[in-house]
Amino acid sequence: MKKKQLSIVKIGGEILNKENSTDIFLKKFNALKGLKILVHGGGKQASTLANRMGIESKMINGRRITDSENLDIAIMVYGGLLNKKLVARLQATGCAAIGVSGADGNAVLANKRPPQPIDFGFAGDIEKVNSDFLKLLLEGGHTPVMCALSHDGKGQMLNTNADTIASETAIAMSSLYDTKLYYVFDKPGVLEDVDDESSVIRNMSEAIYQDLIASNQITDGMIPKLDNGYHALRHQVAQVYLGNVKMLTDAKIPSTRIRL
Amino acid sequence: MKKKQLSIVKIGGEILNKENSTDIFLKKFNALKGLKILVHGGGKQASTLANRMGIESKMINGRRITDSENLDIAIMVYGGLLNKKLVARLQATGCAAIGVSGADGNAVLANKRPPQPIDFGFAGDIEKVNSDFLKLLLEGGHTPVMCALSHDGKGQMLNTNADTIASETAIAMSSLYDTKLYYVFDKPGVLEDVDDESSVIRNMSEAIYQDLIASNQITDGMIPKLDNGYHALRHQVAQVYLGNVKMLTDAKIPSTRIRL
Repeated sequence: MKKKQLSIVKIGGEILNKENSTDIFLKKFNALKGLKILVHGGGKQASTLANRMGIESKMINGRRITDSENLDIAIMVYGGLLNKKLVARLQATGCAAIGVSGADGNAVLANKRPPQPIDFGFAGDIEKVNSDFLKLLLEGGHTPVMCALSHDGKGQMLNTNADTIASETAIAMSSLYDTKLYYVFDKPGVLEDVDDESSVIRNMSEAIYQDLIASNQITDGMIPKLDNGYHALRHQVAQVYLGNVKMLTDAKIPSTRIRL
Repeated sequence: MKKKQLSIVKIGGEILNKENSTDIFLKKFNALKGLKILVHGGGKQASTLANRMGIESKMINGRRITDSENLDIAIMVYGGLLNKKLVARLQATGCAAIGVSGADGNAVLANKRPPQPIDFGFAGDIEKVNSDFLKLLLEGGHTPVMCALSHDGKGQMLNTNADTIASETAIAMSSLYDTKLYYVFDKPGVLEDVDDESSVIRNMSEAIYQDLIASNQITDGMIPKLDNGYHALRHQVAQVYLGNVKMLTDAKIPSTRIRL
Protein backbone atom coordinates (compact mmCIF):
# COMPACT_ATOMS: atom_id res chain seq x y z
CA MET A 1 0.00 0.00 0.00
CA LYS A 2 1.21 3.47 -0.81
CA LYS A 3 2.26 5.32 2.32
CA LYS A 4 0.74 8.68 3.23
CA GLN A 5 2.95 11.73 3.00
CA LEU A 6 4.33 13.40 6.11
CA SER A 7 6.26 16.67 6.23
CA ILE A 8 8.57 17.42 9.14
CA VAL A 9 9.54 21.08 9.33
CA LYS A 10 12.33 22.35 11.59
CA ILE A 11 12.52 26.08 12.32
CA GLY A 12 14.98 28.07 14.38
CA GLY A 13 13.95 30.23 17.30
CA GLU A 14 14.75 33.40 15.32
CA ILE A 15 11.56 32.99 13.25
CA LEU A 16 9.63 33.35 16.52
CA ASN A 17 11.44 36.54 17.59
CA LYS A 18 9.82 38.83 15.04
CA GLU A 19 6.05 39.13 14.71
CA ASN A 20 6.37 39.56 10.95
CA SER A 21 8.50 36.50 10.31
CA THR A 22 6.28 34.40 12.60
CA ASP A 23 3.21 35.46 10.60
CA ILE A 24 4.85 34.59 7.28
CA PHE A 25 5.98 31.25 8.60
CA LEU A 26 2.56 30.35 10.00
CA LYS A 27 0.89 31.10 6.65
CA LYS A 28 3.33 28.90 4.72
CA PHE A 29 3.21 26.11 7.27
CA ASN A 30 -0.59 26.07 7.22
CA ALA A 31 -0.63 25.99 3.43
CA LEU A 32 1.50 22.84 3.48
CA LYS A 33 -0.79 19.95 2.51
CA GLY A 34 -1.07 16.62 4.31
CA LEU A 35 0.19 15.38 7.66
CA LYS A 36 2.89 17.46 9.30
CA ILE A 37 5.07 17.87 12.37
CA LEU A 38 6.77 21.10 13.42
CA VAL A 39 10.06 21.12 15.36
CA HIS A 40 11.40 24.35 16.83
CA GLY A 41 14.57 25.56 18.50
CA GLY A 42 14.99 28.63 20.68
CA GLY A 43 18.63 28.87 21.82
CA LYS A 44 18.72 32.67 21.56
CA GLN A 45 15.58 33.15 23.64
CA ALA A 46 17.03 30.75 26.24
CA SER A 47 20.23 32.82 26.37
CA THR A 48 18.17 36.00 26.78
CA LEU A 49 16.32 34.57 29.79
CA ALA A 50 19.56 33.20 31.28
CA ASN A 51 21.13 36.66 31.00
CA ARG A 52 18.14 38.30 32.61
CA MET A 53 18.29 35.81 35.50
CA GLY A 54 22.04 36.25 35.86
CA ILE A 55 22.69 32.64 34.90
CA GLU A 56 25.87 32.02 32.97
CA SER A 57 25.59 30.27 29.57
CA LYS A 58 28.53 27.89 29.54
CA MET A 59 30.05 26.80 26.23
CA ILE A 60 32.92 24.42 25.42
CA ASN A 61 34.18 24.38 21.81
CA GLY A 62 31.09 26.33 20.77
CA ARG A 63 28.75 23.78 22.33
CA ARG A 64 26.40 24.57 25.16
CA ILE A 65 26.84 22.95 28.58
CA THR A 66 23.48 22.26 30.18
CA ASP A 67 23.84 22.49 33.94
CA SER A 68 20.82 22.20 36.21
CA GLU A 69 19.92 25.91 36.05
CA ASN A 70 20.32 26.05 32.27
CA LEU A 71 18.18 22.93 31.93
CA ASP A 72 15.39 24.70 33.83
CA ILE A 73 15.79 27.64 31.44
CA ALA A 74 15.55 25.27 28.45
CA ILE A 75 12.42 23.61 29.85
CA MET A 76 10.80 26.99 30.53
CA VAL A 77 11.68 28.56 27.19
CA TYR A 78 11.47 25.60 24.77
CA GLY A 79 8.72 23.58 26.48
CA GLY A 80 6.82 26.57 27.87
CA LEU A 81 7.13 30.04 26.39
CA LEU A 82 7.95 29.32 22.74
CA ASN A 83 6.07 26.06 22.40
CA LYS A 84 2.80 27.28 23.92
CA LYS A 85 2.81 30.62 22.09
CA LEU A 86 3.46 28.82 18.81
CA VAL A 87 0.70 26.29 19.49
CA ALA A 88 -1.75 29.09 20.37
CA ARG A 89 -0.86 30.95 17.16
CA LEU A 90 -1.27 27.79 15.07
CA GLN A 91 -4.64 27.05 16.71
CA ALA A 92 -5.78 30.56 15.75
CA THR A 93 -5.07 29.80 12.09
CA GLY A 94 -7.01 26.56 12.07
CA CYS A 95 -4.11 24.16 12.63
CA ALA A 96 -4.93 21.60 15.34
CA ALA A 97 -1.52 21.93 16.98
CA ILE A 98 -0.38 20.13 20.10
CA GLY A 99 2.88 20.83 21.89
CA VAL A 100 5.09 17.82 22.54
CA SER A 101 8.27 17.74 24.59
CA GLY A 102 10.24 14.52 24.66
CA ALA A 103 8.56 13.49 27.91
CA ASP A 104 5.00 13.99 26.67
CA GLY A 105 3.73 10.65 25.45
CA ASN A 106 7.31 9.40 25.86
CA ALA A 107 7.86 11.07 22.47
CA VAL A 108 11.66 11.29 22.60
CA LEU A 109 13.56 8.92 24.86
CA ALA A 110 17.24 9.77 25.29
CA ASN A 111 20.34 8.85 27.26
CA LYS A 112 22.21 11.47 29.24
CA ARG A 113 25.49 11.97 27.39
CA PRO A 114 28.41 10.31 29.23
CA PRO A 115 30.52 12.89 31.13
CA GLN A 116 33.74 11.85 29.33
CA PRO A 117 35.60 13.38 27.52
CA ILE A 118 33.49 16.52 28.03
CA ASP A 119 30.66 16.79 30.57
CA PHE A 120 27.85 18.45 28.64
CA GLY A 121 25.53 18.17 31.65
CA PHE A 122 21.88 17.39 30.97
CA ALA A 123 22.32 16.77 27.25
CA GLY A 124 20.35 13.87 25.79
CA ASP A 125 21.41 11.59 22.95
CA ILE A 126 18.29 10.12 21.38
CA GLU A 127 17.55 6.45 21.90
CA LYS A 128 14.04 6.24 20.44
CA VAL A 129 11.34 8.47 18.97
CA ASN A 130 7.86 7.13 19.78
CA SER A 131 6.32 6.85 16.32
CA ASP A 132 3.17 5.15 17.66
CA PHE A 133 2.38 8.15 19.84
CA LEU A 134 3.04 10.67 17.06
CA LYS A 135 0.91 8.54 14.73
CA LEU A 136 -1.96 8.60 17.25
CA LEU A 137 -1.85 12.40 17.19
CA LEU A 138 -1.47 12.68 13.41
CA GLU A 139 -4.25 10.21 12.62
CA GLY A 140 -6.44 12.00 15.17
CA GLY A 141 -6.09 15.12 13.01
CA HIS A 142 -3.48 16.87 15.13
CA THR A 143 -0.17 18.53 14.29
CA PRO A 144 2.57 17.80 16.84
CA VAL A 145 4.79 20.78 17.68
CA MET A 146 8.03 19.41 19.09
CA CYS A 147 10.73 21.30 20.97
CA ALA A 148 14.37 20.67 21.85
CA LEU A 149 13.67 18.55 24.93
CA SER A 150 13.95 14.81 25.53
CA HIS A 151 13.76 12.71 28.71
CA ASP A 152 15.64 9.70 30.02
CA GLY A 153 12.65 7.57 31.05
CA LYS A 154 13.87 7.74 34.66
CA GLY A 155 12.27 11.06 35.47
CA GLN A 156 14.94 13.42 34.13
CA MET A 157 14.31 15.98 31.38
CA LEU A 158 17.23 16.49 28.96
CA ASN A 159 18.22 19.07 26.37
CA THR A 160 18.55 17.77 22.79
CA ASN A 161 19.42 19.76 19.67
CA ALA A 162 16.27 20.55 17.67
CA ASP A 163 17.98 19.66 14.35
CA THR A 164 18.59 16.19 15.76
CA ILE A 165 15.05 15.87 17.14
CA ALA A 166 13.83 16.65 13.61
CA SER A 167 16.04 14.10 11.84
CA GLU A 168 15.46 11.30 14.35
CA THR A 169 11.73 11.95 14.22
CA ALA A 170 11.85 11.80 10.43
CA ILE A 171 13.73 8.50 10.61
CA ALA A 172 11.27 6.98 13.10
CA MET A 173 8.26 8.09 11.05
CA SER A 174 9.66 6.82 7.74
CA SER A 175 8.49 3.27 8.36
CA LEU A 176 4.92 4.58 8.60
CA TYR A 177 4.91 7.53 6.18
CA ASP A 178 6.61 8.79 3.04
CA THR A 179 8.57 11.45 4.94
CA LYS A 180 10.04 14.76 3.81
CA LEU A 181 12.31 16.69 6.15
CA TYR A 182 12.67 20.47 5.78
CA TYR A 183 15.27 22.57 7.57
CA VAL A 184 13.96 26.14 7.39
CA PHE A 185 16.35 29.02 8.05
CA ASP A 186 17.03 32.53 6.81
CA LYS A 187 18.91 31.63 3.60
CA PRO A 188 17.39 30.12 0.45
CA GLY A 189 19.62 27.07 0.83
CA VAL A 190 23.28 26.07 0.89
CA LEU A 191 25.12 28.72 -1.13
CA GLU A 192 28.15 28.22 -3.34
CA ASP A 193 29.07 31.79 -2.52
CA VAL A 194 27.89 32.82 0.95
CA ASP A 195 27.55 36.43 -0.22
CA ASP A 196 25.36 35.57 -3.21
CA GLU A 197 21.86 34.35 -2.38
CA SER A 198 21.30 33.37 -6.01
CA SER A 199 24.07 30.76 -5.78
CA VAL A 200 21.87 28.09 -4.17
CA ILE A 201 23.16 24.56 -4.69
CA ARG A 202 19.94 22.87 -5.84
CA ASN A 203 21.18 19.29 -5.56
CA MET A 204 23.93 18.54 -3.14
CA SER A 205 25.69 15.20 -2.89
CA GLU A 206 27.64 14.23 0.19
CA ALA A 207 30.83 14.56 -1.89
CA ILE A 208 30.03 18.22 -2.61
CA TYR A 209 29.31 18.70 1.11
CA GLN A 210 32.69 17.29 2.07
CA ASP A 211 34.38 19.57 -0.48
CA LEU A 212 32.58 22.61 0.94
CA ILE A 213 33.59 21.69 4.49
CA ALA A 214 37.20 21.17 3.39
CA SER A 215 37.24 24.62 1.77
CA ASN A 216 35.57 26.21 4.83
CA GLN A 217 32.51 27.33 2.86
CA ILE A 218 29.92 25.99 5.29
CA THR A 219 28.86 28.17 8.22
CA ASP A 220 28.74 26.69 11.72
CA GLY A 221 24.97 26.69 12.07
CA MET A 222 24.56 24.76 8.82
CA ILE A 223 26.73 21.80 9.78
CA PRO A 224 24.30 20.18 12.27
CA LYS A 225 21.46 20.52 9.73
CA LEU A 226 23.52 18.89 6.99
CA ASP A 227 24.96 16.17 9.21
CA ASN A 228 21.50 15.38 10.52
CA GLY A 229 20.06 15.59 7.02
CA TYR A 230 22.49 13.04 5.54
CA HIS A 231 21.98 10.82 8.58
CA ALA A 232 18.23 10.94 7.86
CA LEU A 233 18.75 10.03 4.18
CA ARG A 234 20.90 7.07 5.17
CA HIS A 235 18.00 5.85 7.33
CA GLN A 236 15.13 5.77 4.82
CA VAL A 237 13.92 9.37 5.02
CA ALA A 238 12.64 10.02 1.48
CA GLN A 239 13.68 13.66 0.92
CA VAL A 240 15.62 16.33 2.81
CA TYR A 241 15.57 20.05 1.94
CA LEU A 242 17.29 23.14 3.33
CA GLY A 243 16.05 26.63 2.53
CA ASN A 244 13.87 29.51 3.58
CA VAL A 245 10.20 29.34 4.43
CA LYS A 246 9.05 29.91 0.82
CA MET A 247 10.20 26.42 -0.23
CA LEU A 248 7.41 24.85 1.85
CA THR A 249 4.65 25.75 -0.57
CA ASP A 250 6.34 26.52 -3.88
CA ALA A 251 8.48 23.85 -5.56
CA LYS A 252 9.82 26.46 -7.99
CA ILE A 253 11.54 28.42 -5.22
CA PRO A 254 15.23 27.48 -5.15
CA SER A 255 16.28 25.38 -2.15
CA THR A 256 18.93 22.79 -1.47
CA ARG A 257 17.89 19.17 -1.76
CA ILE A 258 20.56 16.96 -0.32
CA ARG A 259 21.24 13.50 -1.74
CA LEU A 260 23.44 10.59 -0.83
CA MET B 1 -24.47 1.49 28.46
CA LYS B 2 -22.60 1.97 31.70
CA LYS B 3 -20.03 4.74 31.39
CA LYS B 4 -16.37 4.14 32.17
CA GLN B 5 -14.97 5.76 35.28
CA LEU B 6 -12.71 8.81 35.05
CA SER B 7 -10.85 10.43 37.95
CA ILE B 8 -9.78 14.06 37.74
CA VAL B 9 -7.19 14.98 40.36
CA LYS B 10 -6.22 18.57 41.09
CA ILE B 11 -3.01 19.21 43.05
CA GLY B 12 -1.43 22.45 44.20
CA GLY B 13 2.09 23.46 43.24
CA GLU B 14 3.30 22.90 46.81
CA ILE B 15 3.24 19.11 46.29
CA LEU B 16 5.86 19.63 43.58
CA ASN B 17 8.16 21.74 45.76
CA LYS B 18 9.36 18.91 47.97
CA GLU B 19 10.92 15.76 46.54
CA ASN B 20 9.34 13.68 49.29
CA SER B 21 5.77 14.93 48.81
CA THR B 22 6.09 14.58 45.02
CA ASP B 23 7.18 10.95 45.44
CA ILE B 24 4.27 10.16 47.74
CA PHE B 25 1.82 11.84 45.40
CA LEU B 26 3.14 10.00 42.33
CA LYS B 27 2.76 6.63 44.05
CA LYS B 28 -0.83 7.33 45.06
CA PHE B 29 -1.76 8.78 41.68
CA ASN B 30 -0.33 5.77 39.87
CA ALA B 31 -2.18 3.38 42.13
CA LEU B 32 -5.47 5.05 41.19
CA LYS B 33 -7.30 2.61 38.88
CA GLY B 34 -8.92 3.49 35.56
CA LEU B 35 -8.78 6.56 33.33
CA LYS B 36 -7.42 9.72 34.91
CA ILE B 37 -6.49 13.33 34.32
CA LEU B 38 -4.12 15.35 36.50
CA VAL B 39 -4.46 19.13 36.90
CA HIS B 40 -1.76 21.12 38.65
CA GLY B 41 -1.24 24.66 39.90
CA GLY B 42 2.05 26.39 40.64
CA GLY B 43 1.38 29.93 41.84
CA LYS B 44 4.18 29.90 44.41
CA GLN B 45 6.78 28.74 41.90
CA ALA B 46 5.60 31.46 39.51
CA SER B 47 6.02 34.07 42.24
CA THR B 48 9.52 32.75 42.98
CA LEU B 49 10.57 33.15 39.34
CA ALA B 50 8.94 36.60 39.13
CA ASN B 51 10.89 37.70 42.21
CA ARG B 52 14.13 36.37 40.79
CA MET B 53 13.51 38.27 37.53
CA GLY B 54 12.56 41.43 39.39
CA ILE B 55 9.00 41.29 38.05
CA GLU B 56 6.35 42.57 40.40
CA SER B 57 3.44 40.22 41.28
CA LYS B 58 0.41 42.48 41.26
CA MET B 59 -2.64 41.61 43.34
CA ILE B 60 -6.02 43.30 43.76
CA ASN B 61 -8.29 42.03 46.56
CA GLY B 62 -6.03 39.00 46.92
CA ARG B 63 -6.36 38.11 43.23
CA ARG B 64 -3.45 38.04 40.85
CA ILE B 65 -3.24 40.50 37.96
CA THR B 66 -1.69 38.86 34.89
CA ASP B 67 0.13 41.50 32.88
CA SER B 68 2.19 40.53 29.84
CA GLU B 69 5.38 39.78 31.82
CA ASN B 70 3.51 37.75 34.43
CA LEU B 71 1.75 35.82 31.67
CA ASP B 72 5.14 34.83 30.26
CA ILE B 73 6.14 33.70 33.75
CA ALA B 74 2.95 31.62 34.01
CA ILE B 75 3.54 30.03 30.61
CA MET B 76 7.15 29.22 31.51
CA VAL B 77 6.43 27.85 34.97
CA TYR B 78 3.04 26.14 34.53
CA GLY B 79 3.35 25.03 30.89
CA GLY B 80 7.11 24.43 30.97
CA LEU B 81 8.99 23.79 34.19
CA LEU B 82 6.35 22.17 36.40
CA ASN B 83 4.37 20.44 33.67
CA LYS B 84 7.34 18.83 31.93
CA LYS B 85 9.07 17.75 35.13
CA LEU B 86 5.84 16.20 36.36
CA VAL B 87 5.26 14.43 33.04
CA ALA B 88 8.84 13.08 33.06
CA ARG B 89 8.40 11.82 36.62
CA LEU B 90 5.09 10.16 35.76
CA GLN B 91 6.60 8.53 32.66
CA ALA B 92 9.35 7.09 34.88
CA THR B 93 6.74 5.36 37.02
CA GLY B 94 4.94 3.79 34.06
CA CYS B 95 2.18 6.37 33.64
CA ALA B 96 1.81 7.39 29.97
CA ALA B 97 1.51 11.08 30.82
CA ILE B 98 1.16 13.88 28.31
CA GLY B 99 1.28 17.58 29.22
CA VAL B 100 -1.63 19.67 28.00
CA SER B 101 -1.95 23.44 28.22
CA GLY B 102 -5.23 24.98 27.12
CA ALA B 103 -3.81 25.67 23.66
CA ASP B 104 -2.61 22.12 23.03
CA GLY B 105 -5.32 20.34 21.08
CA ASN B 106 -7.51 23.39 21.80
CA ALA B 107 -8.04 21.72 25.17
CA VAL B 108 -9.31 24.78 27.08
CA LEU B 109 -10.82 27.65 25.12
CA ALA B 110 -11.40 30.81 27.15
CA ASN B 111 -12.39 34.47 26.85
CA LYS B 112 -10.12 37.18 28.17
CA ARG B 113 -11.90 38.59 31.19
CA PRO B 114 -13.47 42.00 30.45
CA PRO B 115 -11.37 44.87 31.90
CA GLN B 116 -14.33 46.26 33.90
CA PRO B 117 -14.71 46.62 36.86
CA ILE B 118 -11.17 45.32 37.48
CA ASP B 119 -8.62 44.67 34.73
CA PHE B 120 -7.14 41.28 35.59
CA GLY B 121 -5.01 41.36 32.44
CA PHE B 122 -4.51 38.07 30.60
CA ALA B 123 -6.96 36.10 32.74
CA GLY B 124 -9.16 33.60 30.88
CA ASP B 125 -12.74 32.63 31.74
CA ILE B 126 -13.41 29.19 30.30
CA GLU B 127 -15.75 28.90 27.35
CA LYS B 128 -15.24 25.23 26.43
CA VAL B 129 -13.14 22.24 27.41
CA ASN B 130 -12.42 20.01 24.41
CA SER B 131 -13.71 16.64 25.62
CA ASP B 132 -13.15 14.98 22.22
CA PHE B 133 -9.44 15.75 22.36
CA LEU B 134 -9.08 14.57 25.96
CA LYS B 135 -11.03 11.43 25.05
CA LEU B 136 -8.63 10.74 22.15
CA LEU B 137 -5.72 10.84 24.59
CA LEU B 138 -7.47 8.81 27.30
CA GLU B 139 -8.69 6.10 24.91
CA GLY B 140 -5.20 5.99 23.40
CA GLY B 141 -3.93 4.94 26.82
CA HIS B 142 -2.57 8.35 27.86
CA THR B 143 -2.98 10.43 31.01
CA PRO B 144 -3.41 14.16 30.31
CA VAL B 145 -1.53 16.44 32.71
CA MET B 146 -3.21 19.85 32.55
CA CYS B 147 -1.88 23.15 33.85
CA ALA B 148 -3.38 26.54 34.67
CA LEU B 149 -3.29 27.88 31.11
CA SER B 150 -6.04 28.44 28.55
CA HIS B 151 -6.07 30.23 25.18
CA ASP B 152 -8.54 32.49 23.41
CA GLY B 153 -8.53 30.77 20.01
CA LYS B 154 -7.13 33.95 18.48
CA GLY B 155 -3.51 33.26 19.27
CA GLN B 156 -3.37 34.53 22.84
CA MET B 157 -2.44 32.37 25.82
CA LEU B 158 -4.36 33.15 29.04
CA ASN B 159 -3.98 32.35 32.72
CA THR B 160 -6.84 30.37 34.29
CA ASN B 161 -7.13 29.14 37.88
CA ALA B 162 -6.25 25.43 38.10
CA ASP B 163 -9.19 24.69 40.44
CA THR B 164 -11.49 26.01 37.71
CA ILE B 165 -9.69 24.09 34.94
CA ALA B 166 -10.29 20.94 37.02
CA SER B 167 -14.01 21.55 37.60
CA GLU B 168 -14.77 22.63 34.03
CA THR B 169 -12.85 19.63 32.70
CA ALA B 170 -14.84 17.35 35.03
CA ILE B 171 -18.09 18.91 33.76
CA ALA B 172 -17.11 18.52 30.10
CA MET B 173 -16.04 14.89 30.59
CA SER B 174 -19.17 13.92 32.53
CA SER B 175 -21.21 13.34 29.38
CA LEU B 176 -18.65 10.71 28.33
CA TYR B 177 -17.50 9.24 31.65
CA ASP B 178 -18.69 8.64 35.20
CA THR B 179 -16.46 11.37 36.61
CA LYS B 180 -15.00 11.86 40.09
CA LEU B 181 -13.25 15.12 40.93
CA TYR B 182 -10.61 15.21 43.68
CA TYR B 183 -9.13 18.38 45.15
CA VAL B 184 -5.91 17.27 46.84
CA PHE B 185 -4.26 19.59 49.36
CA ASP B 186 -2.38 19.39 52.65
CA LYS B 187 -5.36 18.85 54.98
CA PRO B 188 -7.47 15.69 55.26
CA GLY B 189 -10.56 17.65 54.19
CA VAL B 190 -12.75 20.53 55.31
CA LEU B 191 -12.37 20.72 59.08
CA GLU B 192 -15.01 21.69 61.62
CA ASP B 193 -12.17 22.98 63.78
CA VAL B 194 -9.22 24.21 61.69
CA ASP B 195 -6.83 23.27 64.51
CA ASP B 196 -8.07 19.69 64.76
CA GLU B 197 -7.26 17.45 61.80
CA SER B 198 -9.55 14.75 63.16
CA SER B 199 -12.58 17.03 62.73
CA VAL B 200 -13.04 16.28 59.01
CA ILE B 201 -16.58 16.92 57.76
CA ARG B 202 -17.19 13.66 55.88
CA ASN B 203 -20.34 14.77 54.08
CA MET B 204 -20.84 18.44 53.45
CA SER B 205 -24.03 19.93 52.09
CA GLU B 206 -24.08 23.37 50.52
CA ALA B 207 -26.06 24.57 53.56
CA ILE B 208 -23.21 23.53 55.88
CA TYR B 209 -20.76 25.28 53.53
CA GLN B 210 -22.74 28.52 53.71
CA ASP B 211 -22.83 28.28 57.52
CA LEU B 212 -19.05 27.79 57.66
CA ILE B 213 -18.48 30.78 55.37
CA ALA B 214 -20.85 32.91 57.48
CA SER B 215 -18.91 31.98 60.62
CA ASN B 216 -15.54 32.59 58.93
CA GLN B 217 -14.42 28.99 59.35
CA ILE B 218 -13.28 28.47 55.75
CA THR B 219 -9.75 29.46 54.77
CA ASP B 220 -9.20 31.55 51.64
CA GLY B 221 -7.55 28.81 49.57
CA MET B 222 -10.46 26.46 50.21
CA ILE B 223 -13.18 28.70 48.83
CA PRO B 224 -12.28 28.34 45.10
CA LYS B 225 -12.14 24.55 45.51
CA LEU B 226 -15.53 24.43 47.20
CA ASP B 227 -17.18 26.91 44.83
CA ASN B 228 -15.79 25.01 41.85
CA GLY B 229 -16.75 21.71 43.45
CA TYR B 230 -20.41 22.66 43.95
CA HIS B 231 -20.48 24.13 40.44
CA ALA B 232 -19.26 20.75 39.16
CA LEU B 233 -21.94 18.86 41.13
CA ARG B 234 -24.64 21.13 39.71
CA HIS B 235 -23.42 20.16 36.21
CA GLN B 236 -23.57 16.37 36.34
CA VAL B 237 -20.17 15.59 37.85
CA ALA B 238 -20.85 12.40 39.83
CA GLN B 239 -18.69 12.89 42.94
CA VAL B 240 -16.44 15.62 44.36
CA TYR B 241 -13.93 15.08 47.20
CA LEU B 242 -11.51 17.34 49.08
CA GLY B 243 -8.69 15.89 51.14
CA ASN B 244 -5.07 14.87 51.25
CA VAL B 245 -3.35 12.52 48.84
CA LYS B 246 -4.17 9.40 50.87
CA MET B 247 -7.86 9.59 49.91
CA LEU B 248 -7.00 8.68 46.30
CA THR B 249 -6.38 5.04 47.04
CA ASP B 250 -8.02 4.29 50.37
CA ALA B 251 -11.76 4.89 50.77
CA LYS B 252 -11.42 4.45 54.55
CA ILE B 253 -9.23 7.56 54.87
CA PRO B 254 -11.39 10.49 56.03
CA SER B 255 -12.00 13.13 53.38
CA THR B 256 -14.76 15.61 52.63
CA ARG B 257 -17.33 14.57 50.06
CA ILE B 258 -19.42 17.54 49.10
CA ARG B 259 -23.08 17.14 48.18
CA LEU B 260 -25.78 19.41 46.85
